[in-house]
Amino acid sequence: MKPKIAISIGDLSGVGIEIALKSHEEISKLCDPLYCINEELLAQASKLLNKNIPKDFKLHSVPGSFEIEVATVNANSGKYSYDSFIEAIKLCETKEADAVVTMPIHKEAWMMAGVEYKGHTDLLRDYFDKDAIMMLGCPEMYVALFTEHIPLKEVASSIKYKRLKQFLVDLHRDVKDKKVAVLGLNPHAGDNGVLGQEELIIMKAVKSANKKIGAEQFVGPVVPDIAFTPHFRENFNYFVAMYHDQGLAPLKALHFDESVNISLNLPIVRTSVDHGTAFDIAYKGQAKNLSYINAIKSAISFL
Amino acid sequence: MKPKIAISIGDLSGVGIEIALKSHEEISKLCDPLYCINEELLAQASKLLNKNIPKDFKLHSVPGSFEIEVATVNANSGKYSYDSFIEAIKLCETKEADAVVTMPIHKEAWMMAGVEYKGHTDLLRDYFDKDAIMMLGCPEMYVALFTEHIPLKEVASSIKYKRLKQFLVDLHRDVKDKKVAVLGLNPHAGDNGVLGQEELIIMKAVKSANKKIGAEQFVGPVVPDIAFTPHFRENFNYFVAMYHDQGLAPLKALHFDESVNISLNLPIVRTSVDHGTAFDIAYKGQAKNLSYINAIKSAISFL
Repeated sequence: MKPKIAISIGDLSGVGIEIALKSHEEISKLCDPLYCINEELLAQASKLLNKNIPKDFKLHSVPGSFEIEVATVNANSGKYSYDSFIEAIKLCETKEADAVVTMPIHKEAWMMAGVEYKGHTDLLRDYFDKDAIMMLGCPEMYVALFTEHIPLKEVASSIKYKRLKQFLVDLHRDVKDKKVAVLGLNPHAGDNGVLGQEELIIMKAVKSANKKIGAEQFVGPVVPDIAFTPHFRENFNYFVAMYHDQGLAPLKALHFDESVNISLNLPIVRTSVDHGTAFDIAYKGQAKNLSYINAIKSAISFL
Repeated sequence: MKPKIAISIGDLSGVGIEIALKSHEEISKLCDPLYCINEELLAQASKLLNKNIPKDFKLHSVPGSFEIEVATVNANSGKYSYDSFIEAIKLCETKEADAVVTMPIHKEAWMMAGVEYKGHTDLLRDYFDKDAIMMLGCPEMYVALFTEHIPLKEVASSIKYKRLKQFLVDLHRDVKDKKVAVLGLNPHAGDNGVLGQEELIIMKAVKSANKKIGAEQFVGPVVPDIAFTPHFRENFNYFVAMYHDQGLAPLKALHFDESVNISLNLPIVRTSVDHGTAFDIAYKGQAKNLSYINAIKSAISFL
C-alpha cells in the first residue's frame, strides 16, 4: 500500500496550489495525497490558473471562504494556510495520514492573521512541545541546523555542550547509522584555538554523542570551508552546521532547486518545499516542482 | 611582450616546486616566469622528483643551502620560503617583474624560522603598510573578505561603517567597474532587523561607496544563503563576504580546484595558489596545477 501524505496547501496567494495541481499525477505514483483544502477555494484557484482539477484529487475539507488575492500578502490566505497545516498535522495524529508535506506559507500573512509563529518548524515545536530539528537538503547532501534564525552575533554563545550532545543524539534517531560531519564554528575550525575556542565544546559533544550511541557516527569539528568541497562530499551526505548560513549558503549554491526542508525529532514526519511563496511568478504557470517532488520522496524515505 | 612574473617558490618540503616544474611549459606561453630559487636547491628538488629542469627555467638566485626534508615542517624550508617571497616582492619594486605569484608556505615552518606573519597577505600588509584586500576565486566567482582570520564571535562587532565604506572604495580601484554583491551578515540579511541590525551599517556603507564612486557598482546587503545560488550567480561574479566561511565555504563547494588567492589594494599585484603545502602528496607526482595556472592567469588579468 502506498503511504498516505497529507498536503498542507500553503498560502493560496502564492505558487503552492499550482505546484500541487501540476504534480498530482507524478506524486500519485509514489503516494496517496490528501489535500487539505476545500472545494470552493480549490475551484477558485483552478479557475485562476486555468487548470483542470484531476478527478482523483482527494480533499480533506478545511473550512474557509474568501476571495484569493494573487501575489498579495493578506490575512485570509495567512489564516487559511495555518488552518490547513493544523489539519494536516491532525490527520497524522489520527493515523489518517502517514506524513505531512507542506507548501510554503507567508510569514507576514501569518502575522496579519494573528499567527505568532515564525514558520512551520516553530509551530511544530510548540504543538508537540519537542525540540524539532530543522534539516534541509536532498539525498546528495542534507544539512541539519544546530542554531537557526538568530542574529550571527548570538551564535558563538549558543554553542553549548549539553544541548549539542542532545541534538546529535536526537539526530541519530532519525538519520539512523549515516555518517555525519559536524562543522566547527570558526575559520579553520579555530586553528588549534588561535581563531576561537568553541571547537573544544564541539569536539567534546561529538565524542560524548558517539559514546552514547556506541558508534563513530559523528565526525568533527570539521573545517567549515572544507566540509563542502567535492572531495569531502564524496564521503559525507549528512552535515550539522552550527548556524544558518554556514550550512545553507553552500547547500543552496550546490542544490537550490532540488532541496527540501525536513522536521526531525517529532512524533510525525514533516517535509516541505525549500522555497517561499514566490509571488513574482504566482499563478503564471512558471513554478518549478522539483523541490515538491523531492519533499514527497523525502517524507516517504523518513517514514 | 609577455609579462614577467616572479615566482615565490614556497615551502620546499611541499608540492610547490613540483607544480612549478611541471607547469613551466604551459605558463611560459602566457608569461616570462622568473623563479626565486637557487641552482643548488633546484637541483636537489629535481632529483627528489626525478624530473628534469627545463632549459629555459630562468632563476633569480636566492641564497640558502640545506637538505630538503620532504613533507616535514622545518625551519630551513620556512626561512627559505620567506626569503624567496621577499625577493619576489623586490623584483616587482625594481620593475624586474610585473607581478608575484606565490606557491604555498607552511605557517608553522614560518613560526619555526622566527617569521611572525600568519601568511603572505599579513606580510604584504606590513611590508607596504597598506590595508591589503584578500580576494579568492576564479573568473566565474571571486569573493573578497571583509574580515578574515578572526573568531566568529568577533565578526559582528567588526562590521563598521567607515571601514566597510573604505574597503568598498579600495576594492573598486582594483576590480574596476564590475558589479559586486555585498553580503549581509545575518540569516535572511536580518529579516528587516528581526534577526540582527548590522545590515543597516552595510546598507549605509554600500550607498555611500556607490555615491563616492559615482556608480551603482555595489549591491546589497544581499541575503547570504541566496547570494551563491545558480540564479543569483548568473548576474554577479564578484562578492564581498563579511567573514571567512560565509564566502569561502560556498566558493570551495563550487570551485575548489581552480580557485586562487589574490591580494588587492597594494602597490604590486600578487596572486597565489589557493591550497596548502599538501605534505600528504609532496614529491609523489600527484599535485594538481589548475590553481597555479589560474593564479598566473589572474595575475596577468589584474596587471
